[in-house]
Amino acid sequence: MRFKDLVEKLGQSVKSSSETPDVEITGVSAVLDSKPNTVTYSESLKFANQLRETQASAVILPENEELLTIAKARGLAWMIVANPRYTFAQAIALFYQPYKPSATIHPSAIIDPSAQIGENVAIGAHVVIEANAKIGDSVVIHPGVVLYPEVTIGDRSVLHATCVIHERARIGADCVIHAGSVIGSEGFGFVPTREGWLKMEQSGYTVLEDFVEVGCNSSIDRPSVGETRIGRNTKIDNCVQIGHGVKTGEACAFAAQVGIAGGSVLGNRVILAGQVGVGNESRMGDGSVASAKTGVHASVPAGKTVSGYPAVDHRVFLRSSAVYSKLSEMYQAIKQIQKKLGMDS
Amino acid sequence: MRFKDLVEKLGQSVKSSSETPDVEITGVSAVLDSKPNTVTYSESLKFANQLRETQASAVILPENEELLTIAKARGLAWMIVANPRYTFAQAIALFYQPYKPSATIHPSAIIDPSAQIGENVAIGAHVVIEANAKIGDSVVIHPGVVLYPEVTIGDRSVLHATCVIHERARIGADCVIHAGSVIGSEGFGFVPTREGWLKMEQSGYTVLEDFVEVGCNSSIDRPSVGETRIGRNTKIDNCVQIGHGVKTGEACAFAAQVGIAGGSVLGNRVILAGQVGVGNESRMGDGSVASAKTGVHASVPAGKTVSGYPAVDHRVFLRSSAVYSKLSEMYQAIKQIQKKLGMDS
Amino acid sequence: MRFKDLVEKLGQSVKSSSETPDVEITGVSAVLDSKPNTVTYSESLKFANQLRETQASAVILPENEELLTIAKARGLAWMIVANPRYTFAQAIALFYQPYKPSATIHPSAIIDPSAQIGENVAIGAHVVIEANAKIGDSVVIHPGVVLYPEVTIGDRSVLHATCVIHERARIGADCVIHAGSVIGSEGFGFVPTREGWLKMEQSGYTVLEDFVEVGCNSSIDRPSVGETRIGRNTKIDNCVQIGHGVKTGEACAFAAQVGIAGGSVLGNRVILAGQVGVGNESRMGDGSVASAKTGVHASVPAGKTVSGYPAVDHRVFLRSSAVYSKLSEMYQAIKQIQKKLGMDS
Repeated sequence: MRFKDLVEKLGQSVKSSSETPDVEITGVSAVLDSKPNTVTYSESLKFANQLRETQASAVILPENEELLTIAKARGLAWMIVANPRYTFAQAIALFYQPYKPSATIHPSAIIDPSAQIGENVAIGAHVVIEANAKIGDSVVIHPGVVLYPEVTIGDRSVLHATCVIHERARIGADCVIHAGSVIGSEGFGFVPTREGWLKMEQSGYTVLEDFVEVGCNSSIDRPSVGETRIGRNTKIDNCVQIGHGVKTGEACAFAAQVGIAGGSVLGNRVILAGQVGVGNESRMGDGSVASAKTGVHASVPAGKTVSGYPAVDHRVFLRSSAVYSKLSEMYQAIKQIQKKLGMDS
Repeated sequence: MRFKDLVEKLGQSVKSSSETPDVEITGVSAVLDSKPNTVTYSESLKFANQLRETQASAVILPENEELLTIAKARGLAWMIVANPRYTFAQAIALFYQPYKPSATIHPSAIIDPSAQIGENVAIGAHVVIEANAKIGDSVVIHPGVVLYPEVTIGDRSVLHATCVIHERARIGADCVIHAGSVIGSEGFGFVPTREGWLKMEQSGYTVLEDFVEVGCNSSIDRPSVGETRIGRNTKIDNCVQIGHGVKTGEACAFAAQVGIAGGSVLGNRVILAGQVGVGNESRMGDGSVASAKTGVHASVPAGKTVSGYPAVDHRVFLRSSAVYSKLSEMYQAIKQIQKKLGMDS
Repeated sequence: MRFKDLVEKLGQSVKSSSETPDVEITGVSAVLDSKPNTVTYSESLKFANQLRETQASAVILPENEELLTIAKARGLAWMIVANPRYTFAQAIALFYQPYKPSATIHPSAIIDPSAQIGENVAIGAHVVIEANAKIGDSVVIHPGVVLYPEVTIGDRSVLHATCVIHERARIGADCVIHAGSVIGSEGFGFVPTREGWLKMEQSGYTVLEDFVEVGCNSSIDRPSVGETRIGRNTKIDNCVQIGHGVKTGEACAFAAQVGIAGGSVLGNRVILAGQVGVGNESRMGDGSVASAKTGVHASVPAGKTVSGYPAVDHRVFLRSSAVYSKLSEMYQAIKQIQKKLGMDS
């Protein structure tokens, strides 16, 4: 594809280089780790040095004089867009054809006769589908997946290899469940007794609304009664644990190794960075954010960013952590002051 | 079932409403997210507002005048019991029949001829059982499970889909291993050398005593020599990592994403909240507790609750973390005092 | 085997007991949890008490008068070596024959005809190998493993049960992937838009160089473009998450539940202890170390040890955390000083 045609296909550029219309673009690449005849992108000045070294032939840029000057000096083909990352995502989609198995049912799959299978469904080798499952149209189920009884999978959803969907779980349309994840498993519900732990049966179920994505080796439990619910368009990374009865709003994003304990309720567009923990029965308002490793409990108001453990306002955390390394010195200073003032310490 | 009959079946109520003996109870529900003709429960005044809004027709209460007043005002059928959560667990068990596959061996399961299989065992599709396994009576093995050679599974234990039990592991009776978990895997044992890491073979094995439960996507390693041992009735949540040679006592509970490093020894009824880490060769006494995200190392005495990283007494942690957000202000105050006193800072 | 012969076979002892050449050694054991007629080891004086109680008949020791005195007093056979742990690893290898399935292809395995399979390969029951895979010589693939299309597995590598290798991933020679791990899965790449999250296709791939080991239930993502690369001889424990585009050097070691976010670059011999988090686009120099639960971001110089969150120099962390429990007391002291000095607080 010529650069000129790429610009046209992406259809989002405010401006683009006119000296290089015929540069052949055959793929995409990262700004470093790049090859000639590929297009890359640069989001901000932070990546200026990388732009100076890229081997790519074309670059997608934001409105930024300095980056543009570099691109020009390097003789790169360039296009300026409102959101370079967004445009780059679309450039990838132009060149990359994700692997999709053909819409056939492998003869080694074991499918209960009571299961309802939609049109145009791909079911891989050694898949197991138990009784009364309902599989929508154009669903893709990769090898080794296990569906317990009475599971529902919405249209066009993709279940990657070896993931497990437990009884009664309802996966919406256009969801992706990555390899090794477990949806709708039993919540961790035990009652302490003198003799040990009494198991509380987990009679509820888990619901994933449409466009939810769940990373590898994550688990989303079901509650003893009622439902666990993940809101539409929420994206969940790898090794995330979501406890029984959690409810999340729409378009949340949870990074890897996040844990959300039972009964917590999160609003829309809540963002949890890596390794965040959210305690039992917590509340997080719309648009709230917890930075990496934060321990949230009680409640976080809408729009607020919190950090640290226990979680405090992010700016306060930054101020406090900036002096954390001076704690010992502060302690000594107080002792000296007390001594000078003749105070007991 | 009529409310009167439910009260009788549960057999634990101190007192119950007499005006509503014939209310039909057809199931259980959470206090919110509830339906008419179900029974719910309320543990404490914390849930008073939820009780005011519940759609349930009956409620299990502790001895608490205020909750009782609400229940009466709402016209709910009520019963007062010593431990509402315990009684609710039994109410669930009355109405909910957990999924249990029939005691047959699926023809697609691959079972080594040397394996000994007990009576009344369910083995699901695509299960693999290697040489010399011993499977007790009434065991349930869900689809896609893999047992390496010389594994022992005690009577009535349940292995959920795709879990893996490594060579020589011994699972007791009445255990539950959830989907995706790996028991008896190789410990992380490498010796640093000039050329890199020399692998130490892991010749030991892992033992789970009776009534142990392990959540989804957890792993319990075996040691280079000797055994890793999880004590009777210990309950382990999802994404938990237990290192080589760890020993735990009875009736411990480990919440999600806990990690216990190699060689640690825990007493009975030790509780680790979510994302706790226990360092190499640590010791925790009977009944000790670590709150969420705590980093334990060295040793924790019996009965003690610790928090923070590094772990300190929980009350001390609460006091210190209460002033953490004032650190910057404290630092400035010390500077001002030093200035006023003409001290070097 | 007689003790004399064991010493000879190990070939590393500086000195050994001559009074006990004929003690029969039939195996290895931990210093406690030990049996007669086994050999154990003791690395340092820390284990002196355990040495006083061991049931083992022989012990591998470092050059240490006190340990030697104990061994002699106990009548143990002993050998002194430069690195007891290293020698013990070799002693295990003398007595322990790890389980290795025979080099056959199980008839239930589903292998695409386009896959190239080397010599002497073991492929277990219910394995699935998709199109264009290249499997080297002497590879072992345990039951239930799934290889997506165009995967490469180097000679002698071992893939444990139910692990999943995604499209285009390249596993080097002599690697071990433990049960439940997922290699080359889609990176967590989404672009925020007004309507929610736009998926960025992950067109890259993951490379594991030779002698890499990955624990159970870990995941190593692939990037949107380019590669994720794990350097030769790097060892990764259980439940570890490695994000898209991460590059590590050689001989790194990552303990359980470590998370490394997208785009981070680590040098050679970097060590991350349990539950460490490394933020997006971080840099860690050769030989740097992060202690347990550390939150790394920005950059860590070569050779440096960091701790805490946010990460600071390890010695500073020790000093600060030593006074953390006195924070409340410090705060009160400052208030009293201010009062005494008539300062506003």
